[in-house]
Amino acid sequence: MEAVQSSVDMLWVMLGTILVFFMHAGFAMLETGFTRSKNTLNILMKNLITVGLGSILYFFVGFALMFGTSAFGLIGTDGFALAGREDIGFFVFQAVFAATCATIISGAVAERMKLSSYIMLTVAMTAVIYPIVGHWVWGGGWLSQIGFIDFAGSTVVHLTGATAAFITAWKLGPRLGKYSGTIVNSIPGHNLPLGALGVFILWLGWFGFNGGSTLAADPELVPPVIVNTLLAASAAVISTALYTRLRYGRIDPSLTMNGALAGLVGITAGAANVSFLGAMAIGLLAGIIMTEAVHLLDAKIRVDDPVGAIAVHGVAGIWGTMALGFFDTTGGLLYGGGSEILGIQTVGVLAVIAWTSISAGLVVLAVNALSPIRVSAEEEESGLDFSEHGSQAYAMQDVLRGSAPSAESFATRLNKIGEKPAPTKL
Amino acid sequence: MEAVQSSVDMLWVMLGTILVFFMHAGFAMLETGFTRSKNTLNILMKNLITVGLGSILYFFVGFALMFGTSAFGLIGTDGFALAGREDIGFFVFQAVFAATCATIISGAVAERMKLSSYIMLTVAMTAVIYPIVGHWVWGGGWLSQIGFIDFAGSTVVHLTGATAAFITAWKLGPRLGKYSGTIVNSIPGHNLPLGALGVFILWLGWFGFNGGSTLAADPELVPPVIVNTLLAASAAVISTALYTRLRYGRIDPSLTMNGALAGLVGITAGAANVSFLGAMAIGLLAGIIMTEAVHLLDAKIRVDDPVGAIAVHGVAGIWGTMALGFFDTTGGLLYGGGSEILGIQTVGVLAVIAWTSISAGLVVLAVNALSPIRVSAEEEESGLDFSEHGSQAYAMQDVLRGSAPSAESFATRLNKIGEKPAPTKL
Amino acid sequence: MEAVQSSVDMLWVMLGTILVFFMHAGFAMLETGFTRSKNTLNILMKNLITVGLGSILYFFVGFALMFGTSAFGLIGTDGFALAGREDIGFFVFQAVFAATCATIISGAVAERMKLSSYIMLTVAMTAVIYPIVGHWVWGGGWLSQIGFIDFAGSTVVHLTGATAAFITAWKLGPRLGKYSGTIVNSIPGHNLPLGALGVFILWLGWFGFNGGSTLAADPELVPPVIVNTLLAASAAVISTALYTRLRYGRIDPSLTMNGALAGLVGITAGAANVSFLGAMAIGLLAGIIMTEAVHLLDAKIRVDDPVGAIAVHGVAGIWGTMALGFFDTTGGLLYGGGSEILGIQTVGVLAVIAWTSISAGLVVLAVNALSPIRVSAEEEESGLDFSEHGSQAYAMQDVLRGSAPSAESFATRLNKIGEKPAPTKL
Repeated sequence: MEAVQSSVDMLWVMLGTILVFFMHAGFAMLETGFTRSKNTLNILMKNLITVGLGSILYFFVGFALMFGTSAFGLIGTDGFALAGREDIGFFVFQAVFAATCATIISGAVAERMKLSSYIMLTVAMTAVIYPIVGHWVWGGGWLSQIGFIDFAGSTVVHLTGATAAFITAWKLGPRLGKYSGTIVNSIPGHNLPLGALGVFILWLGWFGFNGGSTLAADPELVPPVIVNTLLAASAAVISTALYTRLRYGRIDPSLTMNGALAGLVGITAGAANVSFLGAMAIGLLAGIIMTEAVHLLDAKIRVDDPVGAIAVHGVAGIWGTMALGFFDTTGGLLYGGGSEILGIQTVGVLAVIAWTSISAGLVVLAVNALSPIRVSAEEEESGLDFSEHGSQAYAMQDVLRGSAPSAESFATRLNKIGEKPAPTKL
Repeated sequence: MEAVQSSVDMLWVMLGTILVFFMHAGFAMLETGFTRSKNTLNILMKNLITVGLGSILYFFVGFALMFGTSAFGLIGTDGFALAGREDIGFFVFQAVFAATCATIISGAVAERMKLSSYIMLTVAMTAVIYPIVGHWVWGGGWLSQIGFIDFAGSTVVHLTGATAAFITAWKLGPRLGKYSGTIVNSIPGHNLPLGALGVFILWLGWFGFNGGSTLAADPELVPPVIVNTLLAASAAVISTALYTRLRYGRIDPSLTMNGALAGLVGITAGAANVSFLGAMAIGLLAGIIMTEAVHLLDAKIRVDDPVGAIAVHGVAGIWGTMALGFFDTTGGLLYGGGSEILGIQTVGVLAVIAWTSISAGLVVLAVNALSPIRVSAEEEESGLDFSEHGSQAYAMQDVLRGSAPSAESFATRLNKIGEKPAPTKL
Repeated sequence: MEAVQSSVDMLWVMLGTILVFFMHAGFAMLETGFTRSKNTLNILMKNLITVGLGSILYFFVGFALMFGTSAFGLIGTDGFALAGREDIGFFVFQAVFAATCATIISGAVAERMKLSSYIMLTVAMTAVIYPIVGHWVWGGGWLSQIGFIDFAGSTVVHLTGATAAFITAWKLGPRLGKYSGTIVNSIPGHNLPLGALGVFILWLGWFGFNGGSTLAADPELVPPVIVNTLLAASAAVISTALYTRLRYGRIDPSLTMNGALAGLVGITAGAANVSFLGAMAIGLLAGIIMTEAVHLLDAKIRVDDPVGAIAVHGVAGIWGTMALGFFDTTGGLLYGGGSEILGIQTVGVLAVIAWTSISAGLVVLAVNALSPIRVSAEEEESGLDFSEHGSQAYAMQDVLRGSAPSAESFATRLNKIGEKPAPTKL
């Protein structure tokens, strides 16, 4: 009987693993869609290489630092290359998480960061920086000891990735043409249907991200987690759509798509700890907070983030983590508890921001000293697809120039086909 | 042991839920691909908002009306906001179904319906109109009492959505330029690869739609349902390809893609009730019937349906439901039964058409009285992406204009890269 | 208890089935992205029809030839249309494999093979050619009797498909303009983001392909298979990126994407038989071998394969199969075994190449005698979308010509929306 239950639990975690893996397709499509066509291959390569490199480094190093025997609650110390470990299913679930954390950066640094520099940062993120945060919260480290709550990683995964993204984007500076004196120029993404596809894929994957984090197919726990994930994202879609309607006079498509993601990031910390109404409240506010954060970063702080990753993963990640202080059903302020949870959550958020900004900052400085992390102005102008890969993402000449059949000749899929009389003429 | 079995069943229903959720990505890509680029953001927003709004309204209202204690077999009366319910997994599976029903409409009304009007209709569909049909068939209502069969929703989901789509598209009128006197103009979709991706995603999701509707991981029942789903869609692909070859002289890509969906809609009612050969026959005929229905609607009835949703979900839905009168292995006409099943199925189909067309029709009239549901001719001409969102889906200037590197410079991925001699010259 | 276990096992195999089905979306996107826009609908139709036709033929014929009572270890002889079979779940898992094998061909013959000829070849592949290979290895046939190892199909599925692809592409000859005297021209794919999406979808599906091949949710076996699949593909991404950097001076996006697939093909034979380090070594070498194979085929042998299918599925398939001679943990050369496994694997590879090239070659010759399998030069020039389907994949005029709003008017999603003062001006 225990054997059967372990089969079921294993199956659930493997399903979660597979779904979280697929989130990389979501990130790739989202970042491709929200940036310019001349940098498309580069962003695709960044995403693909992040999965590959992240999985292997996490296997050799990251998993040990995260879940090995703890030294002073700060870092794991054994289990490198899975030595002595038998929880292979648990490892692979964690491995796809590690790559997710790292890939958040790729969107924020898009269109101007050198691929080789990005790769070095990814090495540091998946082998060391993320695993140490993970150890603190999920590996028995000091944050778990003081009661910090982060069910599936609003802070561990999303805030860690976003903090590193912020530091790197800040160091990189804005894309050419982003700011002209006091004017903030918008640089529209080139293919928003792919961006929307990315959002749907990420949402799909998130059911594995949050659902799989139960680590067992518990029929009492899993369904509420899935419902909370659905409702928080749904509430965020609605609130972002309405809020951008009020704020900017139109339902903004890009922000509404990011709204869904903000809702998902927001509910990640508390998917197993809040009520359905709590999940909706967290999502609803996540959408609005993210919208304001995008504006703040873009127009005030002037850190150029082409896809909005810092607002979505960082600011909504902080919100989702802090929200447990209010919405945790076993001790949040709205459920008769004191401010203890809120205090602990604040400590966790600040500690992760401090560690990640310092460690990732030092890595970025070191990599930059080796060779500038930003491509030259000429390379940026011509596009990274050309300068780094000697290639381009699209070859649409057939469609665009005269080589396609004339409009007349391909007019229709219903009439004008074959020699029969056009059936649509009455 | 029962606990383990309930884990397995829960896991199967959650997998179904996740797959059905992903169908929204399929709808979004299908509808995007089959319409014009100037209305792309609008259709993406309609799909995204439908999921968000549908999930939340179904949580607060719809689920109660569908599965609450029945009043006279007509409507459920309790369980609002899941009050007193413990079947959370069952709820979330049903919630993604509700959103699916509503999103069918978005394709038929594309390119001319005001987003705000569409949202109001979605509210009515997911909160009231669909749940009442659901109550009749799946919630213990009068249609289930007389023995109406609809395993996974050919009628409950697809015909309900398509009937509302028909009424709304009829009220809206055709897109500008669709008809010129006796001429029926075809308005080609702008990105059929995305449309094809949508078809594959929908087919994928349908394994969860039909498979999950077993509500238990029964090893005797689930595999035949999966096989029937695969074979019906496969037969429909083949029949549509052949039939359009005969009818129009060419294998028609758009219709063949819709053929797959027609086969899936067709087998949905009887996936657990027909044999493998029966499933193939249902799918085979679904493709042909859908093809003729598209022609009939487009050229004769002249209700403009940009993506063919009414034919795919409505006509194939009717066919799939009625087909049980012939193919049900425990009482269909081809299996030695009488015409009883056929009669009951007819009653069900007519009742659902009557209820949905009246209720959705009244909603459409009421919404239209508030503010016209159709955008102005100028807005339609400029595209809904611009008029409703002040934005556009694509920014392909880098590819299209001279800012991309010359053809010479990006000629190849194999040669002309770097300074080494081109390796492909012998 | 056994009933519950069989529920779990069934669920795992159904999940595998669903994921392998989705690989067809991956193939469709990959092949679409890597070819020209004027042949897009044709390649989409080839992929869609392959699934439909393959499923049905495998149901009626293929499954019986593969898993029926063996005649002399060469071919199965009963179970046509599942007569007398009760392992329905096993059937459907195998059915989606059969279609996968056949669809490999569609990429290699793209842009010049007549659709009707391709369909006839697909009939032969899914009904006869592939099932016979399958019988030899998985159906109790002679290769399984001598101890040939192919866990999930590096040879059975991928090499079989690729051999038929090679024979057909060779017979077809190169696309017009591919070779000019001694010059090898590169014909770039028209939409690499779709190609990358295809790679991610295929990778996702491969977890079902390899994972599901355990045929049971064994908690000891499944996780290592998933880990090996992840690590081999990851290693191949890294090795291909680095190797193309060394070989061509740039990280080549198309080859790196194909590298991921080569790693997946490579690990398929031994996913359950090698260690984690072995999996990484297999993947690492798969990427490099595939890169050289692309060059060899393209520039030396001059068989034109638009998507690299022969190198990815054939050459990496051979490598993955032979690699067990070295890396099998229970008898490979690197684990203290003799050369026995290597010898048996070689026999298997040669037998499958011989059978498939002869049988597929005869089919191609027969089909070609009926009617030339290659479209006319004019049809090829105008594109198969126009010549075979009277249609086109894209209608981007709104974006490309003046009918879209001016750059000024859609400048931004953050400012210039509505009547409020642009919020991004400080």
